[in-house]
Amino acid sequence: MNPLETEAQPGTVELAVRRHRDGRVETLADHVGQEWPVALVFNGISHAVMMCTPRDLEAFAVGFAISEGIVGRNADIQDIEVAYHDEGDLPHAQVQLTVVQQAFAGLKEKRRALAGRTGCGVCGIESVDLLDLEPELVPDTGFLARLAPDALARAARELPAHQALTKLTGGLHAAAWCDASGGIVRAFEDVGRHNALDKLIGQLILERVDPQQGFVFLSSRASYELVRKAARVGIPLVATISAPSSLAITIAKRAGLRLVSFCRESGYVDYQTA
Amino acid sequence: MNPLETEAQPGTVELAVRRHRDGRVETLADHVGQEWPVALVFNGISHAVMMCTPRDLEAFAVGFAISEGIVGRNADIQDIEVAYHDEGDLPHAQVQLTVVQQAFAGLKEKRRALAGRTGCGVCGIESVDLLDLEPELVPDTGFLARLAPDALARAARELPAHQALTKLTGGLHAAAWCDASGGIVRAFEDVGRHNALDKLIGQLILERVDPQQGFVFLSSRASYELVRKAARVGIPLVATISAPSSLAITIAKRAGLRLVSFCRESGYVDYQTA
Repeated sequence: MNPLETEAQPGTVELAVRRHRDGRVETLADHVGQEWPVALVFNGISHAVMMCTPRDLEAFAVGFAISEGIVGRNADIQDIEVAYHDEGDLPHAQVQLTVVQQAFAGLKEKRRALAGRTGCGVCGIESVDLLDLEPELVPDTGFLARLAPDALARAARELPAHQALTKLTGGLHAAAWCDASGGIVRAFEDVGRHNALDKLIGQLILERVDPQQGFVFLSSRASYELVRKAARVGIPLVATISAPSSLAITIAKRAGLRLVSFCRESGYVDYQTA
Repeated sequence: MNPLETEAQPGTVELAVRRHRDGRVETLADHVGQEWPVALVFNGISHAVMMCTPRDLEAFAVGFAISEGIVGRNADIQDIEVAYHDEGDLPHAQVQLTVVQQAFAGLKEKRRALAGRTGCGVCGIESVDLLDLEPELVPDTGFLARLAPDALARAARELPAHQALTKLTGGLHAAAWCDASGGIVRAFEDVGRHNALDKLIGQLILERVDPQQGFVFLSSRASYELVRKAARVGIPLVATISAPSSLAITIAKRAGLRLVSFCRESGYVDYQTA
């Protein structure tokens, strides 16, 4: 199943709204970004529910499984089935992944370590000791040396053309994959910025694109989790339109990943001066 | 301990950055929002790690415990201790809460139900069936009838004056508590919009302010989780600067909570026409 061919959901819904402006009220049709609970099930056992825009869910599941370290490579995923339950006013989806026994054993081991605990905030982590603050080192494959001087400006200029759902709703984030000239090769949108990045990572994996030979351009701020996910697959550069957090900068430094923020056509800010 | 008096951390850090603009590069000092892992520990057992700006952590812990339904009321929390570990380049904090035996038993029960599983995405929930999609009904106490016609415009106009950290960093979200005239009574900032709301809810609880007699104004988009947290404590109106998601609208309707978005001085959009 190629996720590019199976847009079971448009990603937005149309609603009647009342717009109040300058003292006048008008009723009009407006589009809203879909936020669905999407359950990720590995070998029959529920692992996580993400609040997600129900498009590109196969790519999302592959990206999540890889960026969260559940599987090491796409070959570890033997089958993926997406089921949409869009009846009623609480639509949701379920993605069933079948993974090789070794990956599933690792997942069970991780579960056993957390037995009897709930988790929250950072993917089921309930203690700081368990937090993954030692990101993978991003190998230097020479991509940054090949980056065109105006690559970031070009990506910033071209991103809006890839944000169809954001244009409709004003309420989604985009993650784009760019080549060394800043041209946008792929872009995904989601109500969650982390989901948008997982969809992008998953699609790179599905299409066997080398994550070390390009960069990610994000419409959002940069968080710890976004940088960690990018480092996991060896992405050499993460560029964001809005601000980074302190931990995003620290983790990027530790990973040897270049992080730039406030990216506009006219410039950007580089936080890694040391 | 009054969190208003114990700003152990400023919420931002100063860094040297390189700003690239119109082909020129300058090195300057810039401020970045702090993102710390903050562990929430109930009666000695780690429950969650949230990625959080380390200010107002007592209010945050109270708000989280209540908005996530871990305790029913502030009196169930017998003690709170905040410890800051700001040595090294991976600073973090821990909040130890002592809660009454009944609340702790409920938490243990919840844990037992999730035994041997990890959770992710929505506060440890790993199956759609466990998702809390039936929010508390917000009681009608007449607050909305008392709301001034220009209350939303006033809150929109006044919010920036309460966003000191956002002004410094460009990278935080704010949650403000407003009275019926739209005046801002309290505001909290955090790298996470859900954390900012939890800090605000916690402070209302600590100061014994009735959450049914005011409204929340958020600098962010409206998600399912923000609406659910507000409904839990009976907040009658949530106003956001940016867009709502489809599920935020659905949950607001179910809770009988009024949700308005794209709030500006000049107007807003009301998604609850049905």
